[in-house]
Amino acid sequence: MNHSNQYEVGKLFEEVTIETKKIFDGKVISLQVDTVTLPDGSTATREIVKHPGAVAVLAIRDDKMIVVEQYRKPLGKSQVEIPAGKLDAGELPQAAATRELEEETGYIAESLIPLTSFYTSPGFADEIIHLFVAEQLVQGSMQTDEDEFLEVMAFTLDEAFTAIRAGRISDAKTISAVYAWQIKKLTGHWPL
Amino acid sequence: MNHSNQYEVGKLFEEVTIETKKIFDGKVISLQVDTVTLPDGSTATREIVKHPGAVAVLAIRDDKMIVVEQYRKPLGKSQVEIPAGKLDAGELPQAAATRELEEETGYIAESLIPLTSFYTSPGFADEIIHLFVAEQLVQGSMQTDEDEFLEVMAFTLDEAFTAIRAGRISDAKTISAVYAWQIKKLTGHWPL
Repeated sequence: MNHSNQYEVGKLFEEVTIETKKIFDGKVISLQVDTVTLPDGSTATREIVKHPGAVAVLAIRDDKMIVVEQYRKPLGKSQVEIPAGKLDAGELPQAAATRELEEETGYIAESLIPLTSFYTSPGFADEIIHLFVAEQLVQGSMQTDEDEFLEVMAFTLDEAFTAIRAGRISDAKTISAVYAWQIKKLTGHWPL
Repeated sequence: MNHSNQYEVGKLFEEVTIETKKIFDGKVISLQVDTVTLPDGSTATREIVKHPGAVAVLAIRDDKMIVVEQYRKPLGKSQVEIPAGKLDAGELPQAAATRELEEETGYIAESLIPLTSFYTSPGFADEIIHLFVAEQLVQGSMQTDEDEFLEVMAFTLDEAFTAIRAGRISDAKTISAVYAWQIKKLTGHWPL
């Protein structure tokens, strides 16, 4: 690439990989340590978790959001979150969102729109979550993974904020979804 | 603990650790694989990234949010984010927020209030980010880490949404902060 302008979108302060050391390859994540050259010519190491990406769904029915409570081993406690799950290999986010919503809650959405996508931890992981809004829900059939146990509930916006204050809801995707839902209620539009 | 009610907050579908295998211990994260007993008595493995926790700051000056652009090696591109950084050992979130804001942007906040805290990836990591709102900013002195290169900018709310749509802002903490800021503008109150 040969650009004359100093600033190129996405390349500011680029770090060039000089070595990649594979540490772990698991069923959900893998881990590598890259040695990089910094803009000043010095070197540093970067610990990088690779993740297949995920989807999450803000599903609304009768003015309540559908949430699931499940045990999160990394936190040592159960938490209330919007339905979510990893992308299968080659799966498009829209298809994964449809699949995860039905698997975890039993609902099929007749309207599913992409709201936003975000990296969860850009300092050490490449995980991206594609967040969708699902409306016009009809009954399908719940079918969780074999190592997945969860309870389905529905919260009003007020109940969601109460759950945030109580620490029952405490993850980035669900809090973002609650904020987006409040913006929708206040403005009539999803924040796109 | 001895509760007679079936539901105990945070313990629903608890998974009991029967073995922990340490995989990696780095300068930012460590990785372990836990073998757990599931509620139905079967076993599963959980890949768990341990992280010291972090702070992020929505700093507002002249109705603009202060943001930093930096290269994110896990993503292979630079991104615009609110100022953030890891907690030092034993450091309180409020102190870390004050420190990171000044180090990364040169600003000292005369008002710093906790907005919310969230886990970024509860499925595989224990990272928590404590998000603060900083106002009444005065000039201090910028002092980035030796392996940290960044550029400080200021975005209006409209510019922030434009950056989200363009993919220049694409991380959970910054998008959450932008949504919270819009709610503050619409209602006069931070979503607490």
